[in-house]
Amino acid sequence: MKTPHIARVGAGVLLSAALAVGAADAQDRVKMNLASSYPSTLGVVGENIQRLIENITVLSNGNFQIRFFEPSALVPALEVFDSVSLGAVDMSYTTTGFHVGKFPGLVFFSSVPFGPSVSEYLGWIHFGGGKQIYDREYNKLGVQGFQCGVVVAESSGWFREEVVSLDQLKGLKMRFFGLGARVMERFGVSTQLLAGGDIYPALELGAIDAAEFSFPTLDRKLGFYQISKHNYFPGWHQQASFVELIINLDKFHALPKSYQKMLEVACGEANMWMMAKGDATQGPAIAFHKSEGVEIHKWTDEQIAAFRQAWEEVAEEAAADNLLFSEVYGSYKAFRETYAEWRDLGYLK
Amino acid sequence: MKTPHIARVGAGVLLSAALAVGAADAQDRVKMNLASSYPSTLGVVGENIQRLIENITVLSNGNFQIRFFEPSALVPALEVFDSVSLGAVDMSYTTTGFHVGKFPGLVFFSSVPFGPSVSEYLGWIHFGGGKQIYDREYNKLGVQGFQCGVVVAESSGWFREEVVSLDQLKGLKMRFFGLGARVMERFGVSTQLLAGGDIYPALELGAIDAAEFSFPTLDRKLGFYQISKHNYFPGWHQQASFVELIINLDKFHALPKSYQKMLEVACGEANMWMMAKGDATQGPAIAFHKSEGVEIHKWTDEQIAAFRQAWEEVAEEAAADNLLFSEVYGSYKAFRETYAEWRDLGYLK
Repeated sequence: MKTPHIARVGAGVLLSAALAVGAADAQDRVKMNLASSYPSTLGVVGENIQRLIENITVLSNGNFQIRFFEPSALVPALEVFDSVSLGAVDMSYTTTGFHVGKFPGLVFFSSVPFGPSVSEYLGWIHFGGGKQIYDREYNKLGVQGFQCGVVVAESSGWFREEVVSLDQLKGLKMRFFGLGARVMERFGVSTQLLAGGDIYPALELGAIDAAEFSFPTLDRKLGFYQISKHNYFPGWHQQASFVELIINLDKFHALPKSYQKMLEVACGEANMWMMAKGDATQGPAIAFHKSEGVEIHKWTDEQIAAFRQAWEEVAEEAAADNLLFSEVYGSYKAFRETYAEWRDLGYLK
Repeated sequence: MKTPHIARVGAGVLLSAALAVGAADAQDRVKMNLASSYPSTLGVVGENIQRLIENITVLSNGNFQIRFFEPSALVPALEVFDSVSLGAVDMSYTTTGFHVGKFPGLVFFSSVPFGPSVSEYLGWIHFGGGKQIYDREYNKLGVQGFQCGVVVAESSGWFREEVVSLDQLKGLKMRFFGLGARVMERFGVSTQLLAGGDIYPALELGAIDAAEFSFPTLDRKLGFYQISKHNYFPGWHQQASFVELIINLDKFHALPKSYQKMLEVACGEANMWMMAKGDATQGPAIAFHKSEGVEIHKWTDEQIAAFRQAWEEVAEEAAADNLLFSEVYGSYKAFRETYAEWRDLGYLK
């Protein structure tokens, strides 16, 4: 199969390309602790961080070791940001959405109601100005962050009764995440943010009436189908959500450049892996839910339109209230407007 | 901001996590030659491979060096596969689509007419059985491959005259890629596969009448707008296309495990980076084309339906003709059928 063209090139040029000429620079041994907001057993999300840690181990020949701690083993699951900022723990696997109370503008780096596809989202973050703001704000707080995995579209939640009219939402106590919670509040829902493991007991005890958490494979893991029999789609509140790896900024700067790059590249790859795995694996979980007597519902076009309008009001008010929210929302909207023409032109409907 | 929970944990547990305890295993020095099918100057596609090589350099502290050779500097741009298979060059940056004549079934790992989004595509490859077939077939030929970058949706091509009716396609000589070429042939087009750099001169000399190559930012680089003033969308023939890194299998196995992992992880990350950059940057190129007098057209629904029907006929015939094509097409179709329910349920229209 050798082509005549190969023969034209001097064999020396080609064969000098061969392997290994001895061994070079030694690698630093580094150990770090990671306090996770998500349990290692949590399907795709938990697998993603285990896989990332293993990749870093292999990339560094075992010299850069990250020790995983389950949620609340070192610090409470929703309080990891402060601990990393202080340096009390080295790093965490979490989401900007868990710090929304403190940094309302930064929730755009986790998930946005009626938000973009993964591709458009990454386009804005990496090439539309998003990451400059994210880095600037996190660095101010002593933290370096990386988008480090994507939760693809979610379900809109689990309800005990069929939601025929949005009026039924009034007075419900519901676990809800991020900016979507503020949308639900417009319909009279009383929302709470609970970490994954705390949702089932709260539902079981009746402390909450309904809950949204993630997509079917993860919701199945948490067992919501045992208590609530009405599962709603699409997840207008989280069409795509990033999880992140955050590391204390001083400790990040103290790392060798090669290890800094391992975090960056392995997190970038984790986005790709988790997007693919999330999207590929929902079918069997939906089928399982059906087999357990769950009814799968889709919001009507009118209901979706009502949620969308409420979201736009929430966003405008939040932008008027908070300078950072306004800056990030402005950058995000400007990018999405330019993108809309390309999406319409480039993609089959 | 220190939480009381931190105090509960022994300080030793947290602080023992600190940095660097000396230096460990030395790293092997490896140099490899890469014969590219795409020039380094080719916008997003060229940047992607330059960036990947730089990432590998940093990840390995400069010990794993990949030397880039422009198309045809070592071997002709479209003949890289054989050279890597033989070991005459170590690796290449190319696409399965350039070897479609030899391995018709493997074109599914490059691009498929009316094919999936990037997310669904990666879902099939990594979790739907695709990669098992890809690895098995490539390994048989002495090659290890990685999907190593995504070209997002393309344009359907550049024409000198407006295409009001598909009858006008009859008798046209056109540069066209992959399985889409066989669809165009059903409409009487005489197709040729030319490497990027050869298209403009062929158009200018009249050796071809029309050409498709890539998305607007890359088409702009190649200057088609200077000769053809009608640019068609959407790119039904290539909604998403993978470029790949291939490496001689023996040389891959001879690499240290950490370097093997660098190729895998850096290529995974490259998919994410290139998807984001491709999607984020088309707007200005389209605006530029308009400013140069190019008319931007969309195929009508009827024309798209005609292309789709022709594609289905082409695929069924190819599957009847070729066992590997049939195996891959079967795996691909089965995955897409399961995915369709999830897409409908999970995603906003």
